[in-house]
Amino acid sequence: MAPFSFAARTSHAEVEEGTTLAPKFDEHGLIPCVTTDAETGEVLMFAYMNAEALSQTITLGEAVYYSRSRAELWHKGATSGHVQKVVEMRVDCDQDCIWLRVDTKGKASCHVGYKSCFFRSVPLGSDGSTLKYEETEKLFDPKAVYGR
Amino acid sequence: MAPFSFAARTSHAEVEEGTTLAPKFDEHGLIPCVTTDAETGEVLMFAYMNAEALSQTITLGEAVYYSRSRAELWHKGATSGHVQKVVEMRVDCDQDCIWLRVDTKGKASCHVGYKSCFFRSVPLGSDGSTLKYEETEKLFDPKAVYGR
Repeated sequence: MAPFSFAARTSHAEVEEGTTLAPKFDEHGLIPCVTTDAETGEVLMFAYMNAEALSQTITLGEAVYYSRSRAELWHKGATSGHVQKVVEMRVDCDQDCIWLRVDTKGKASCHVGYKSCFFRSVPLGSDGSTLKYEETEKLFDPKAVYGR
Repeated sequence: MAPFSFAARTSHAEVEEGTTLAPKFDEHGLIPCVTTDAETGEVLMFAYMNAEALSQTITLGEAVYYSRSRAELWHKGATSGHVQKVVEMRVDCDQDCIWLRVDTKGKASCHVGYKSCFFRSVPLGSDGSTLKYEETEKLFDPKAVYGR
C-alpha cells in the first residue's frame, strides 16, 4: 500500500497541542519508536519507522518498523512468528517520536532471545563500566529461529 | 565532572551478551533515551544523552539529558523543579538506546504541562490524520513555570 500523505507541520501550537497528526521524519526519513508491553509497561524494544512503516502499523494494527541495517520494511514477527499486536499508538508533544503499546502473546521481542531488548541494567552510582543481567532466561533460541 | 571513559565496542557478542557497558553514540555524539514512570510503566518522554549526560545520570541518580535545541546539558527539573529520580537504568541489546525508569513524585515530565509527552493517541485503523487526546488535564501551567 502507498503510505499516508501525512499533514505538513504548520505552527508550533498545532504540532504540540492540536489534533492533526503531522509526524516529523528525520533527514533519513525516519521517526524513532518506543515499544512497550501493554500489560507490564516494560520497554521491549526501540526501533525506527519510515512513512510506510508508520502507515502500515496504523492500518494493520501490528508493529511494522524500518530496519536500518537491512534497509527494508520490517513487519515484526514475519520471520520469528513473534508478531506485536498494537493495543495503542501514541505520539509525543513535538511529534517526533512514536510509542506503541503492544501485546506479544508472551513471545520475545529481542533477537537475542530475551523478552525485552533491555535485559541488562547499568548500576546507579557505579563507575559505568559493568552491566548486570536483569533477565536470565531466553524465551527462544535465536539459532533455531534465525539459523544464525 | 569529566564524563566516564566508556569501553570501546569490541565484538558483536560482547556488545550484545557481555557485561561491559559500551554505549554507541551516533554521529552527533548522542544516544537516545526512553524514560518511563517506574510505577505505571507509562512512557513519559524521549530524549537524547551525550557521554557527559549519561555519566552524570549514572553518578547522580537523576535524569540528565542533552538538549539538541539548546545545545547544552539538561538536568531535567533544573528550571521547573520536576526532577526525575532514576530508579533503574537499562541498556538495550546493541547498546544504542538507554531506558530510564524514574520517579517524578507525581510531577509532569512534558513541557506542555501534561504528565507524559505522549498525551495524544493515533487511532488504529484510521486514515492517520487525526489525533485523540488521552490526557486532558495539565499538571502545571507552562507560562507560569517557564515564563512563555
